[in-house]
Amino acid sequence: MRKLTIGLVGYGNVGSGLVQFLQKKKNFIKNKFQVEFAFKAICDKTIPDRKPAVPEGTLLTADYKELLKDPEITTIVELIGGVHPAREIILDAIKNGKHVVTANKSVISSHGKELFEQAQAHSVNLLYESSVMAGVPSIKMLSEGLAGNKFNAVYGIINGTCNYILSEMTSKKLSFAQALEQAQKNGFAESDPTLDINGMDSAHKIAILVNLAIRKFINLKEIHTEGIQHISHDDIEHAERLGLTIKLLAIAKRVHHELEVRVHPTLISKDHPLASINGVMNALYIDADPMGKILMSGEGAGQMAAASGVVADLINLASRSEKTAPRFFCNTHAESTEMQVIKIDQIMTKFYLRFMATDKPGVLAQIAGVLGKYDVGINSVTQNVHNKAATVPVVMLTEFAPEQMVRQALEEIHKLPIARGKPVAIRMEKLS
Amino acid sequence: MRKLTIGLVGYGNVGSGLVQFLQKKKNFIKNKFQVEFAFKAICDKTIPDRKPAVPEGTLLTADYKELLKDPEITTIVELIGGVHPAREIILDAIKNGKHVVTANKSVISSHGKELFEQAQAHSVNLLYESSVMAGVPSIKMLSEGLAGNKFNAVYGIINGTCNYILSEMTSKKLSFAQALEQAQKNGFAESDPTLDINGMDSAHKIAILVNLAIRKFINLKEIHTEGIQHISHDDIEHAERLGLTIKLLAIAKRVHHELEVRVHPTLISKDHPLASINGVMNALYIDADPMGKILMSGEGAGQMAAASGVVADLINLASRSEKTAPRFFCNTHAESTEMQVIKIDQIMTKFYLRFMATDKPGVLAQIAGVLGKYDVGINSVTQNVHNKAATVPVVMLTEFAPEQMVRQALEEIHKLPIARGKPVAIRMEKLS
Repeated sequence: MRKLTIGLVGYGNVGSGLVQFLQKKKNFIKNKFQVEFAFKAICDKTIPDRKPAVPEGTLLTADYKELLKDPEITTIVELIGGVHPAREIILDAIKNGKHVVTANKSVISSHGKELFEQAQAHSVNLLYESSVMAGVPSIKMLSEGLAGNKFNAVYGIINGTCNYILSEMTSKKLSFAQALEQAQKNGFAESDPTLDINGMDSAHKIAILVNLAIRKFINLKEIHTEGIQHISHDDIEHAERLGLTIKLLAIAKRVHHELEVRVHPTLISKDHPLASINGVMNALYIDADPMGKILMSGEGAGQMAAASGVVADLINLASRSEKTAPRFFCNTHAESTEMQVIKIDQIMTKFYLRFMATDKPGVLAQIAGVLGKYDVGINSVTQNVHNKAATVPVVMLTEFAPEQMVRQALEEIHKLPIARGKPVAIRMEKLS
Repeated sequence: MRKLTIGLVGYGNVGSGLVQFLQKKKNFIKNKFQVEFAFKAICDKTIPDRKPAVPEGTLLTADYKELLKDPEITTIVELIGGVHPAREIILDAIKNGKHVVTANKSVISSHGKELFEQAQAHSVNLLYESSVMAGVPSIKMLSEGLAGNKFNAVYGIINGTCNYILSEMTSKKLSFAQALEQAQKNGFAESDPTLDINGMDSAHKIAILVNLAIRKFINLKEIHTEGIQHISHDDIEHAERLGLTIKLLAIAKRVHHELEVRVHPTLISKDHPLASINGVMNALYIDADPMGKILMSGEGAGQMAAASGVVADLINLASRSEKTAPRFFCNTHAESTEMQVIKIDQIMTKFYLRFMATDKPGVLAQIAGVLGKYDVGINSVTQNVHNKAATVPVVMLTEFAPEQMVRQALEEIHKLPIARGKPVAIRMEKLS
């Protein structure tokens, strides 16, 4: 029987879930893996008096350094989230020779390079399965399960809040505001949902996946990130009629010798497996060479889902010999310097465009004229039957066009006398 | 740079694919994982003179014992398939202190217990990722990715040939024989497709998954196995009208403290993600506690897909310290003795039933009467508009009923004077 003595930093939702998980499944894990876990000490800044209480015999402290001083504690589990002081605590743990397991996407995406270098230098492991899709083993899939494959593209529905909101807007014909309220009421959105709905949460996660795919932490600022705040129910309905559905996709793909990394609402075919990933479910759709297309989906957030990913890391850690240096895939990657992220202006995509315009003859010709001037080809046009409304929608799907040209065309169209309101532009993605 | 020296046994389709894979991706793997692979010797019973040739400097032999004698070879890759002599070669390799990587579902499902015990006794690893879904990392997912979870149920579409045939029958309105011919023409079915279409291939694979889930190799004879040979296009059409689709599912689930393990054509809702897994794609749908539902899909067969799983095993192996005893999850499971497989007679399922009967008044009453006698509840009945045909189909969906009672009822109905032909019965499964 192997024993792993843990110091836990952060006793909030996931932290207390983890303790519960390991208490409840103690015998199951002992029998199945011959591993026993003990929480020797728990650190929480505001020592919690809420239930559940800490396990008997566990030290409760507000000073994480007490955990690092204890030689019996071999592993620190960091569950406080955010960049600071998480980064400092993890570094401190590593320098004290402790293995670290974390669920913290912010610190891994922003300081991963430094943290993994330090972990390697101090011969400890730094594991982070829960940071992307909680207990759905996306990290292990990319780093180990598909080891040897070259990743051509990764498409992720990796924010449950956004996916829930978009699903509700679609199935129940709600506005964004109504669906957000619903999400908050059902516990699927924080009271301050900014980082979820503005796409930043997905950007953090795709940065982690990109590192696994090409072994390079890109700067978060290089990821073009748009949220779902501006998606209107009208666009969902127009899309439906065109056989499309709107998802917040995190996209990373190789284009020649460069890299596209972006997060934005995306129109995909309703027939694609990702289109049927609804509610709080997350999914990854990977195009790998030679494995082809791989899909993985499951609940990518929540107390027990996050705890599950941490437990998998802990069991994996315990299965390794303690004396040998860490050779986990997650932190042995060499940095790949040659791949650069393409600026969003320079990418080519197809667009869904919606213009609101006055209902006059010649409107279509004017809009099409401007698009033509910027070399933006039009694939289809839909002008719905209009019942003498002063303003009517003109919906167009474009051919592949450079982002920059589309934007310039939209600005010019916006200034036309016939234009009513800002044009809507949503990128389309063909996922074969 | 770590070096792994390999002896390959079996230089057929997958074997030569593996050699190609590692030659083509040599630099990629070196840079990404700091690992180098060398094939020191290749054994093939009929020394192949076909292309591709063996790598330069590689010994080609018909005697596998030459590979075992070489102290530089630390790892044997077994790709000959079948139970014998694969079992003997693997055992011999283990006893000579070599790690073994295999893609062989037959030998793992039938002799896994013995092989893993020997591997553990001799402190070597025995890895087998490719044995279930080729390079789609199902083994790693169950054993490591979801470590700590309790598996309530595993549903698999794990035979590409059958899934291709059923998909073609559905989308192109082909008969079984036509679709099989198509599959053979396109290289998706062997010239002797027996083991695929009779469900045995899926039975082997679900046995391996059951061991990962509950740490017990069940006897293959305990798996109730039916193939797809008897599926007619009529039933696919009736099912479609009821919002259902037919898949060959391998099913393993806990029912109270027992286990149901079975392989058979199964009607599932068209809305379920598994229903959209078409063609040669494979999928696993897992119900785990606490992770809930997890779906994983991809191409589960083919030369490069199989090679990809073997490469993942080799890279994982190389990432482990060579001196330490193997603690991979795949072979450290303790045997769980208490779980027993329920006999098929005793399980409860819902059924789709189709009776061909003479078109006379009172037919329905007679059939329903017999079902009632055996306590088989009827959920719905469909009798299609009949244009004076002498024989008409009566399609029924039952409530949950014991298998044994349904069979007895069907035998009795078959003997009714109104019956024309043997009743068709296809189990239904509700996958939430």
